[in-house]
Amino acid sequence: MAMQNIEKLREIIDREIEQMELASRRPNELYLPVDYVLSNGGKRLRPVLSLLACELFSGNLASAIKPAAAIEVFHNFTLLHDDIMDKADIRRCRPTVHKKWNENTAILSGDAMMVLSYKLIAAAEREILPVLLGVFNRTALEVCEGQQMDMNFETMPVVSEEMYLEMIRLKTSVLIAAALEIGAVCGGAAQKDASLMYQSGLNLGMAFQIQDDLLDLYGDQEKFGKKPGGDVLLNKKTFLLVSAFEKANEQTTMRINELMEKENDPDIKVMEFKKIFDELGIRSLAESRAESFFNKALEKLHATSPASSRKSELMELIKTLMARKS
Amino acid sequence: MAMQNIEKLREIIDREIEQMELASRRPNELYLPVDYVLSNGGKRLRPVLSLLACELFSGNLASAIKPAAAIEVFHNFTLLHDDIMDKADIRRCRPTVHKKWNENTAILSGDAMMVLSYKLIAAAEREILPVLLGVFNRTALEVCEGQQMDMNFETMPVVSEEMYLEMIRLKTSVLIAAALEIGAVCGGAAQKDASLMYQSGLNLGMAFQIQDDLLDLYGDQEKFGKKPGGDVLLNKKTFLLVSAFEKANEQTTMRINELMEKENDPDIKVMEFKKIFDELGIRSLAESRAESFFNKALEKLHATSPASSRKSELMELIKTLMARKS
Repeated sequence: MAMQNIEKLREIIDREIEQMELASRRPNELYLPVDYVLSNGGKRLRPVLSLLACELFSGNLASAIKPAAAIEVFHNFTLLHDDIMDKADIRRCRPTVHKKWNENTAILSGDAMMVLSYKLIAAAEREILPVLLGVFNRTALEVCEGQQMDMNFETMPVVSEEMYLEMIRLKTSVLIAAALEIGAVCGGAAQKDASLMYQSGLNLGMAFQIQDDLLDLYGDQEKFGKKPGGDVLLNKKTFLLVSAFEKANEQTTMRINELMEKENDPDIKVMEFKKIFDELGIRSLAESRAESFFNKALEKLHATSPASSRKSELMELIKTLMARKS
Repeated sequence: MAMQNIEKLREIIDREIEQMELASRRPNELYLPVDYVLSNGGKRLRPVLSLLACELFSGNLASAIKPAAAIEVFHNFTLLHDDIMDKADIRRCRPTVHKKWNENTAILSGDAMMVLSYKLIAAAEREILPVLLGVFNRTALEVCEGQQMDMNFETMPVVSEEMYLEMIRLKTSVLIAAALEIGAVCGGAAQKDASLMYQSGLNLGMAFQIQDDLLDLYGDQEKFGKKPGGDVLLNKKTFLLVSAFEKANEQTTMRINELMEKENDPDIKVMEFKKIFDELGIRSLAESRAESFFNKALEKLHATSPASSRKSELMELIKTLMARKS
C-alpha cells in the first residue's frame, strides 16, 4: 500500500518535470541535454521525500510539488557538473552529457538547470517563499562546498573520518535534509517540526552515502549494474578507505599506500583491498555506522508532532532504503 | 557632481561585496576564485544602474543594495563560465580563473557564485521578493540562452542581423534591463514605470553591445588596453561582420569568406576587414544603430513618471556610456 503511494508520488514528479516541456524549448542545444538528464529514470528519492514530508503535516500535496521538483532538478544539476569534474563517462547506464555532447554544453546546460530549479522554488506560495528560499540557498552553497572538499581529498594523502563525515554531510546529506524540511514547510509544519525533519534527513543522508560506499565494493554485481570496486580502483577516499587508514597499524598503512600507488591488475587490487578491509573489520564497522545513522533518522522522524500512524510511509521508505542492495 | 555620486554608489557595491568576506570562507579553494573574480576592479555598471534606478523612485537606497550586488555577482559568474567555454586566457588584464587555477575550480566556483547571487536576491524585502525573484530567474535563464545562441553562431556560416540582435538581447541586454527594473522595484516604482525602466535598459544594453563590437575594431588601442581586431581574428559574428554579410554583394561575400578561411598575417587580416567594412559603410551603420538604441533608452527613461530633474544622473550616465572610448 505504502509503496503504491510512493509510486504515485514519483509519477507526480515525473509529470511536473514533463510539464516543463524541455525538449521543445529553444535554443534546443541548451535544453535537450537538460531534458536528457531529467528523463533518466532516476528514483526521484529526494522529491518523493519532500512530498511525503508534506503529506505528514497536511492533506494537501499541491503546494509541495514545485519545490520538490526544484530539489530534483538541482540534484541532477549537481550530478551533471560533478560528472564533468570527475571525468565520468557513464551515469545511470548512459553516456554523460559532456560525453554525448561536449563540455561546454554540459557547463551551460547545468547552469540553466540551476536557474530552472530556482524557478520552481520561486513558484512556492508567497508566505513560505522566504523560508524555502533560505533553506534552498544555504543548502545549494553547502553542496558546492562538499564537492570542493571531495575534490580536495583527491590530492590529500590521508583524510580523517571526521573530515570525511563533514564532506558527505555537505555533499550529500544536506540536500536530503532540505528535501524533508522543504516538504514539511510546504505542509505547514511548525518550525520545530521542520527542523526535526531536517535532522532526520541529515542522518538519512549520512547513512545513504556510507551505504553507497559499501555497495560500491560489496554490492550485488547484477543488481548494481556495474563491476564492484570502482571506488577502490580510483583510490577514492570513501568511508571504507578512510576508516581503514584510521584503524591500520604502521605495516597495514604501508600495504594500503603501496596498493594505491602501484599499477596493478584491477581484480587483484580489489581483492587485496577486500582482504585488508576484512582484517580491519571495515565492512561491519561501516554497516554499523550506516545503521546507527538510519536509526537516528527514524528517531528524529519519530520525535515530530504528528501522530505515529501518519508516519508509516516515511518510516517504511527509510527502512526500504536501509535494506537496499543497489 | 553626478559622477561623484556614481563613484559613491560604486563604493557601496564594493563594500557590500567586501562584506561577504569571501577570502576567509572555507573551503577556500572554492571561495578564493570567487573573491578574485569579484575584486577585479570592474566598473560595477549594472549595480550602479540598479542603485540609480532605485534613487529615481525613492530617497532610500538601502533596499536596493543587496539586489544590486546580486546582479553584479551573477554578471561575474557568467563571465567566469563564459571564459571557460570561450577558452579565454585573460579577463580585465588578469589570467582567467581556469588559467590561474583549473577548469574544475572555475566550474564549481562559478556555481557557488550563482548561488551567492540568489542569496543576495533573497535578502530583498519580503513584499517585493516574489517580483524580484521572477525578474531575476527569467533573466538568468535568458542569459544562458543567449550564450548558447552565441556558441551556435560559431559553427554557422551566416547569421542574420535579426538573429544577432536577438542573441545580444539575451546575452547582454536583459541583464542590464533587469538591473534597472530591479532597482526601480526596490525604489517602489509602479509596475508601468518598472517596465519602462526595463525597456530603457534593454535598449541601453543593445547599444552597449554594438558599441563593444565597434570598439574592438576601432577603439583607441591605448585606452582599450588591447590590440584592435580581436573579434575579427577569431571570425566572431559581431554586428560588424553580420551586417557586412547582409550588405555585401556576391563578390564581396566571397572576399569575406576567403579572409575568414585563409590563414593570414593578423595585421593584414584586420586591415582587409577594415577595408571591406569601409566600402560597405559598416562603421557608420553600426554607430547609427548604437546611437538609435541609446536614444531609445533615453526616451524610455524620459517616459517614466518621476520629475525630469530626478533623472539627470541616469541621463548623464547613459550619455557618458554613449561617448565611451573603451
